[in-house]
Amino acid sequence: MAAYQRLPFRITEELNDVANRIRLHVVTATNRAKGGHPTSCSSIAEILAVLFFQVMKYKVSILKDPCSDRLVLSKGHAALALYSVWAEVGLFATTELVNFRKFGSNFETYPTPRLSFIDVATGSPGQGLSNAAGMAYMGKYLDKANFRVYCIVGDGETCEGNFWEAVNFTSYYELDNLCLIIDVNRLGQSDQTPVGHDCDVYRRRFDAFGWHPLVVDGHSIDELCKNFHNAHLTKGKPTVLIAKTVKGKYFPDIENELHWHGKHLGERSEHVSKSIKKLIRNTAALRISHQKPAKDAVPRVHLTDIRLYSAPLYKFGDKLTTRAAFSAALVKLGQTNPRILVLDTDCKNTSYTNDFQTFDPSRFIQCFSAEQNMIGVAVGLASRGRSIVFCATYAAGLTKAFDSIRMAAISQSQINIAGIHAGVSVGEDGPCIMGLEDIALFRTIPNCVIFYPSDAISTERAVELAANYPGITYIRLTRPAVPVIYSTRQEFYIGKANLVKENIKDKILVITSGVNLACVLEAYEDLVKINIFIRVMDPFTIKPIDKDGIIKHARECNNRILVVEDHYMEGGLGEAVKSAVAGEEDMAVKHIGIKSIPSSGQSCDLFEHFGLTSTGIKNGIGELLCICNPCL
Amino acid sequence: MAAYQRLPFRITEELNDVANRIRLHVVTATNRAKGGHPTSCSSIAEILAVLFFQVMKYKVSILKDPCSDRLVLSKGHAALALYSVWAEVGLFATTELVNFRKFGSNFETYPTPRLSFIDVATGSPGQGLSNAAGMAYMGKYLDKANFRVYCIVGDGETCEGNFWEAVNFTSYYELDNLCLIIDVNRLGQSDQTPVGHDCDVYRRRFDAFGWHPLVVDGHSIDELCKNFHNAHLTKGKPTVLIAKTVKGKYFPDIENELHWHGKHLGERSEHVSKSIKKLIRNTAALRISHQKPAKDAVPRVHLTDIRLYSAPLYKFGDKLTTRAAFSAALVKLGQTNPRILVLDTDCKNTSYTNDFQTFDPSRFIQCFSAEQNMIGVAVGLASRGRSIVFCATYAAGLTKAFDSIRMAAISQSQINIAGIHAGVSVGEDGPCIMGLEDIALFRTIPNCVIFYPSDAISTERAVELAANYPGITYIRLTRPAVPVIYSTRQEFYIGKANLVKENIKDKILVITSGVNLACVLEAYEDLVKINIFIRVMDPFTIKPIDKDGIIKHARECNNRILVVEDHYMEGGLGEAVKSAVAGEEDMAVKHIGIKSIPSSGQSCDLFEHFGLTSTGIKNGIGELLCICNPCL
Repeated sequence: MAAYQRLPFRITEELNDVANRIRLHVVTATNRAKGGHPTSCSSIAEILAVLFFQVMKYKVSILKDPCSDRLVLSKGHAALALYSVWAEVGLFATTELVNFRKFGSNFETYPTPRLSFIDVATGSPGQGLSNAAGMAYMGKYLDKANFRVYCIVGDGETCEGNFWEAVNFTSYYELDNLCLIIDVNRLGQSDQTPVGHDCDVYRRRFDAFGWHPLVVDGHSIDELCKNFHNAHLTKGKPTVLIAKTVKGKYFPDIENELHWHGKHLGERSEHVSKSIKKLIRNTAALRISHQKPAKDAVPRVHLTDIRLYSAPLYKFGDKLTTRAAFSAALVKLGQTNPRILVLDTDCKNTSYTNDFQTFDPSRFIQCFSAEQNMIGVAVGLASRGRSIVFCATYAAGLTKAFDSIRMAAISQSQINIAGIHAGVSVGEDGPCIMGLEDIALFRTIPNCVIFYPSDAISTERAVELAANYPGITYIRLTRPAVPVIYSTRQEFYIGKANLVKENIKDKILVITSGVNLACVLEAYEDLVKINIFIRVMDPFTIKPIDKDGIIKHARECNNRILVVEDHYMEGGLGEAVKSAVAGEEDMAVKHIGIKSIPSSGQSCDLFEHFGLTSTGIKNGIGELLCICNPCL
Repeated sequence: MAAYQRLPFRITEELNDVANRIRLHVVTATNRAKGGHPTSCSSIAEILAVLFFQVMKYKVSILKDPCSDRLVLSKGHAALALYSVWAEVGLFATTELVNFRKFGSNFETYPTPRLSFIDVATGSPGQGLSNAAGMAYMGKYLDKANFRVYCIVGDGETCEGNFWEAVNFTSYYELDNLCLIIDVNRLGQSDQTPVGHDCDVYRRRFDAFGWHPLVVDGHSIDELCKNFHNAHLTKGKPTVLIAKTVKGKYFPDIENELHWHGKHLGERSEHVSKSIKKLIRNTAALRISHQKPAKDAVPRVHLTDIRLYSAPLYKFGDKLTTRAAFSAALVKLGQTNPRILVLDTDCKNTSYTNDFQTFDPSRFIQCFSAEQNMIGVAVGLASRGRSIVFCATYAAGLTKAFDSIRMAAISQSQINIAGIHAGVSVGEDGPCIMGLEDIALFRTIPNCVIFYPSDAISTERAVELAANYPGITYIRLTRPAVPVIYSTRQEFYIGKANLVKENIKDKILVITSGVNLACVLEAYEDLVKINIFIRVMDPFTIKPIDKDGIIKHARECNNRILVVEDHYMEGGLGEAVKSAVAGEEDMAVKHIGIKSIPSSGQSCDLFEHFGLTSTGIKNGIGELLCICNPCL
């Protein structure tokens, strides 16, 4: 790459004009919308002008061209500045910005992929660098392409733990195709940040974390250009531009003042606009234009109709864990599609994803003990349809990453998440490790599919269905081995329950999944002996739940339902079933689950404690039957 | 403090013996339990021996003496080493360790306060330093006591973001009474850590974060003692001992080897035990004893029967936000009890907790944008009954901290959490900021109380009840102003719903809270005109839900219930109600809530979109009535 050439004065002047036009758009649109974050936009105006007109390679005609450079605006509250620079580039008329924050417009306060030029939703502080790191990992190691990834974070969000997880990941994997820009404008929402304007503190922190840190004046076009060039030349480590900026730059009596976060300028708007207009030297059309990426610089990928290399082959009754089947299915998917990736948080020897690592180390990413970052990286890897990602970690550990998962949904991301060691069946490791709220969490994610497979065969099919689902999926996996209950020819569908036991004499519909099925079937055998028949349903997916199937079969079973689950009583399978039948008359649902914080112990002891053994289940059935027929 | 005196050889020898006896206990107990983490225990044996017999001041007779030094074992998987050193100190017989991991024993795999000597549950990686920082903050700024706080973290968990949030907080507040020990044993669960044994990397990172870093040999009694002394002398910044250790130290053919994480030694156990026994030089009774704390070194505190300074005084019909009432109540509690503390994540100007900061800055703690750490710090502040803590942040932001909240429950902690900007009523800020899963999350926390107050009066009473509740509470707050609907004399109880409208002719029970109540009341007025009466219930607490009240009133309203809520359909008020009536016959529940990811827009537009306006509610009522009486 050529040495840096100082920009001609004319170009610098034009870029300054772009920055100030961004400020003007922002002041006008926030004032019209009576809200937004004009001061936070103003501090990054020059950064955006330089990125969009000097540094980044992209095509306005192909917005999500996989060859293009990427930009993640982690400080999503400055979205309007980003919308404004896209208008300056010519993607749409600046007049469209009047729709900012209006219902029905995609110019929302925080950016989402509802807009054609946004890859990932941002705004929840501290997440953007993880997304950017995923994109950069894709570029460097999988696409082996020369696109670069830029990420702008606010200084306030550098307090977030997720951010430091990403900082660690990015340098560990030597993502020198990533350039981070910290907008050090000193002021958070309600207070000065802990570091304030002391950029040297950031410099030392990033240096210690293995980055190439550069302190720059974030309002100097020339300094920015020079240092972006420097970043481009840096090999073996990511670069961070620690950009010293002023919040509300060029807003008279507002700049660098606390208490102007997230406020439109109101009556000061006119004065500020006038003042900014004076800074604009050239009102004629732009003479500069941005750079374009090389054509076909990335490999073509095919992410549809992904199939297991071979059908699941397990013998009926054989006992094995759903974790093991999950791992086997990942390898089988990896055999048929080169774009299957697997992410781990240092528990591959428990999730058995080390099998995938052995199969193809180049598609296995060790994220270490940093769950938030793993999810963010997954979203980045999956963006622009570059790969199908499976993340595996402890179900309990996913409670750390729930904000990232929530934002992944707003990002319209297609990622698959497996939670191992769900439920008290974990046993001796105790409550810290038991995922007992995972279903409740994932049920709140719109359009998420929750698989809770009950044996090895259904697990493999769940993994296959997940790979093809255009959204977020969650696969609930458990520690103990469970018997194979399905035939190898069984077909599985999202939202379609399977009947494990069915008889015309059935008096109760028992709905259960996973590890609990064995105890239900034990109860079934005992009850048959005294001529009581229960219908046993395995829902396969908890979300969507098979509402029609549940209602139909409950109707055939005297409207009596028993739900048995290894999950807290709230938000899990039980409440999914209750919601499915809430609008029906005459239905009674009894529910056995976890009612208090468990302790360490063998899973059989814990099952007994919570009424999940066959005895507990028979008691539950007895109680329900008494409702219909007290003489039983 | 006196200069460091090198320990006499005799003492060093005895401390080495203690460390090796810890190893012996660990090998024996894990082998008997067929599980646990012996190699992770072994790497901290000398650290524990030195802390318990040389460094820490505490009393075995008063385990939670507020004057004593604290220890947080963040790497909770090494719990058995901690249990062993407490046995060595004489708290219980070493023979009790045979109960490790047994159902019914409190010697669980990870430590919890079910054990008398444990302050906070640990084991979810990366959280312990936040708890320790809360304790240290308490000692330095509130108790103004000279107890010190020690925290042992594993090197693997330093990848967790929560850890770096805590690192930042601890140095920002100059908590020089805190000493962190990193057990740099190089090996995680399934891989080498990113930093491995390169202790200088940790040194530079901590130095850059404003700490006093000291690299030590974690198995050298003398080096440990000297550096703990050095830490004690350090003023103005916290100290970290970066202890280079060996995983499985002194376990022949096992030490420093990968793949021995979380495994008992099995057939190698005998050989290892023999080898360790050879290291123990003195089998006679210990001649050393530990230090005791000064008596009455902390102020006495009273945390019971906490009352508002004055009753809520708002005029019926006046419109104000529940946030404002929350803030007012905090100040009123602060006026009657000096141990009320308020924690913020840089949003005090939205939660209005800046009022509390103005009232008493010494009891207000700015945690910046780091939600996980805020919750961990709160748990630390509340430990040993030293304070009543209220945390306030965005309801959406709490999704970042959910693991910390889950662990706070296992810690039996008494902390109160307020979530602002819940629901689509947030409006223009869009889905990133809208807390739409908060109720679902908190409902999964055993024994948590969820307040969802509907006006200023009920909010103040909720805050008062929360302060007195011996567990975790969540207070759901919303952005828009709502009218005062209760009289100042109204009494509120946890688990007791209030009726807002009641008539003998009521045909439907409508259950709703907060911002939705106004629209329901609007619908009520319209319906009365056509002689349709609805009973309107405000549940006040979503957990526990007033099951008896709901069933009673639903029975009086033709068994028809409509739930209206500004929350995702899953896990919120609707499902709480469905669970309450699931065992009843003939009940039908209709539910209006948020069914997809919202967008930016005015809250009225969003309400209309999701059927939450009076029109939507009337439609819902119409549909429900048709079930009983299609001719209506």
